[in-house]
Amino acid sequence: MRRFSLAFALAMLFTSGSAAAQSDSASSAAPDDPVVLVLHGGAGTIRRADMTDETEAEIRAVLERALRAGHAALEAGRPALDGVLAAIEVLEDDPHFNAGRGGVFAADGTVRHDASVMDGATGRAGASAGTMHVRHPIRLARAVMEASPHVLLTGEGAEEFALQQGLELVPNAFFHTEGRRRALEAVQQRERDASGDAGYDPEPWQRHGTVGAVALDRDGHLAAGTSTGGMTNKRWGRVGDSPIIGAGTYAADATCGVSATGHGEYFIRLGVARDIAARAAYLGESCAEAAEHVIHRTLTEAGGTGGVIVLDARGRAAMPFNTEGMYRATITRSGVVTTALYADE
Amino acid sequence: MRRFSLAFALAMLFTSGSAAAQSDSASSAAPDDPVVLVLHGGAGTIRRADMTDETEAEIRAVLERALRAGHAALEAGRPALDGVLAAIEVLEDDPHFNAGRGGVFAADGTVRHDASVMDGATGRAGASAGTMHVRHPIRLARAVMEASPHVLLTGEGAEEFALQQGLELVPNAFFHTEGRRRALEAVQQRERDASGDAGYDPEPWQRHGTVGAVALDRDGHLAAGTSTGGMTNKRWGRVGDSPIIGAGTYAADATCGVSATGHGEYFIRLGVARDIAARAAYLGESCAEAAEHVIHRTLTEAGGTGGVIVLDARGRAAMPFNTEGMYRATITRSGVVTTALYADE
Repeated sequence: MRRFSLAFALAMLFTSGSAAAQSDSASSAAPDDPVVLVLHGGAGTIRRADMTDETEAEIRAVLERALRAGHAALEAGRPALDGVLAAIEVLEDDPHFNAGRGGVFAADGTVRHDASVMDGATGRAGASAGTMHVRHPIRLARAVMEASPHVLLTGEGAEEFALQQGLELVPNAFFHTEGRRRALEAVQQRERDASGDAGYDPEPWQRHGTVGAVALDRDGHLAAGTSTGGMTNKRWGRVGDSPIIGAGTYAADATCGVSATGHGEYFIRLGVARDIAARAAYLGESCAEAAEHVIHRTLTEAGGTGGVIVLDARGRAAMPFNTEGMYRATITRSGVVTTALYADE
Repeated sequence: MRRFSLAFALAMLFTSGSAAAQSDSASSAAPDDPVVLVLHGGAGTIRRADMTDETEAEIRAVLERALRAGHAALEAGRPALDGVLAAIEVLEDDPHFNAGRGGVFAADGTVRHDASVMDGATGRAGASAGTMHVRHPIRLARAVMEASPHVLLTGEGAEEFALQQGLELVPNAFFHTEGRRRALEAVQQRERDASGDAGYDPEPWQRHGTVGAVALDRDGHLAAGTSTGGMTNKRWGRVGDSPIIGAGTYAADATCGVSATGHGEYFIRLGVARDIAARAAYLGESCAEAAEHVIHRTLTEAGGTGGVIVLDARGRAAMPFNTEGMYRATITRSGVVTTALYADE
C-alpha cells in the first residue's frame, strides 16, 4: 500500500499485510483512528507489468482526491451519504473509471449507467438502471431514495424523474472516451473472429472500474453507494449487481456497509452484500471476517470474480478480492490516506 | 382452508390452523405426504365481505388448475423449474392475477411486466423487468437464466432477447382488462382529487395479485419463480422486488425456496427472500420459522406489508403474511390440494 503517514506505516507493521487492510477482525475494539471512508474503483486484471507509472500515479491521485472530498464532507459533520456521494462524484467525473464519464460502451455504442445507495441508519435505499444522460448516476440513486416512494427506477422513466428532480443531463457522447470505444471494438472483433485474437488488448484500466464507497459519519451512521457503466458490449438491457440492493450495495449500522465490484451475475445470485451483513448479524462475524468468507469461499467456490469494500460502525474496514488487483483506498478520521491497486500491496 | 381430501382434512385437525399451513416447523422429519408445489396469487386487502361467491370460486378454481399443472410436470419426473413454470403460466394467462394478462396499468396506460426464476440445485437465476409484449414473462426469466450469460435483462433489450429466443410476443392490449383500467383511473382520480375520495373503489382482487410458485421435484431439488405487473399507476420505470433475486425470489436446495408478494420497496430494502434463507443457513431455523420471523417481525416492524411462500427440500411449506389475506395454495405429492384466501383460513 502507498501510505502517507509514518505513524500509520508503523502501525501497519503490526497488522496483516493482506488485502484486508485495517480489518482488525481479531479485535472488538474500535481503532484509535477509525477509517471513515473506503473506496473501490473496480477489481480485475490489474498488474504492475501492464501499468505505466503515469497511469498509476493518475489513478492514485484521483482515488486520494475522492477520499479527500468525502472526508471533508464527513469532517464537516454531514451525514455518511454525503461522504459517499462526494467521493463517488469525483470518480464518476474521472475517465479512468467505469462510471459516469469513462463508462464502458454497450453493444449498441451507447454508455448506460447503473447506480445505487443505501443509508445504514434508516435502511432506506435508492437505485437507477440503464440511464444514458444523467451526468452523476449516484445523485439519481440518492434522489430516488429521498424524493420518490420507490427503490429502483429504470431507463427513460428514470431520466424523466431525474429531470423532474433538476439533476444535470448531458448528451451520451459526454461519457464517451477513446479507450472504452477501442475496448468495445476489440470485444466485438473477438466475437466476429473465431480465432479469439483481436489484435488489440484493452488496457487493464479499461477492463473494469465500477466504483463504490462506504462512509461512517460523526454520528456513527454508515452509508454505501456503487456506480457503474456495467459490462463492455452488454446488450439486451443487461443490468448487473451495482443497482441491486443486497447484491452490489448494502448498509446497516448494526452490521456492515458494503459496496461490490466484479462479475455482477455472481454477485446477484449470491446476494453478496446482503450475505456479508447476514453473516455479521447471525453468525457474529466481524464485517472483515464475513467479507473474507464471502469473497474467498462463497464467491470463489461458485466461480465468480471480484471484490468488496466493507466498513463497520466502529471504523473497521476490509477490502478482500479474488482478482489480480482492485483499486481501493481508505481515509481515517485524522486524514491518513491509503491507496492500493495490486494484490501484493 | 378449502380442502379436497378427507385424509388431509383429518390430518389438519392435529396441526396449527395458522397461515403457516403444513409448516411443520417443530419437527425435523419430512412429512409423509410432502408438499411439492406452493403458490401465491398476491397479498393485500382480501376480505370475505368484499368478495362475491362467484369470484371466490373462480380464484380457487384457477389456483387449483395451476397446482395441477405444476404437479403433473413434477410427477412426470421433470425438474422443479418445470413445475414452477407450468403453474405460473396458468396464473399469467388468467385475468384475476396481476401478472401476464390482467397485469395492472402503469401511469402511462401500458402494462409492464417483471419476472424472475431461481434454480435451487445450481444457484442459477434469470429475470426480466419492464417488458410490454412478452406473453409469459416467466418464460423470459427462464430463458435469461438458461440462454444468456446474464441474470437480469430490462426493457426493449429484454424483448429483443425474447424474440431471439422464439418466445411469444403479443400487443400490449392483450394484457389489458377493464377492471385494471378502472383501477388506474381510480388511482389517478384520487391523485387529482385532494379529498382522496375517488368514487370508485377497486375490487379487492384488483389491488394486488403478484403470482409466485416454489416447487420440489422428485430428485429433491427446489426452484422458485415470481411474476407481476407491478404497482398500479407506477411511473419512472419503477421496478419492484419481483425480478430481484434475493428480494422477491430465492431458491437454494440447502435452505429454502421463496417467492414474495407485497409492497416491493420494503422487500428490496430488507432482502426478504435472501434473509429467510440466511436465517435458515446461519441460525438453523426451519424455513417456516425463518419466514414467520421475517414477515411478522422484520417486515412488520419496518412498516411493510405482504407475505411469502416458502418450501424446503423435505416438502415442508409455510405461507406467512401480515395483510388481511393472501391467495395461496399447496399440493402434496399424492395430489392433495389446499387453497386459502383469507387470514382466518
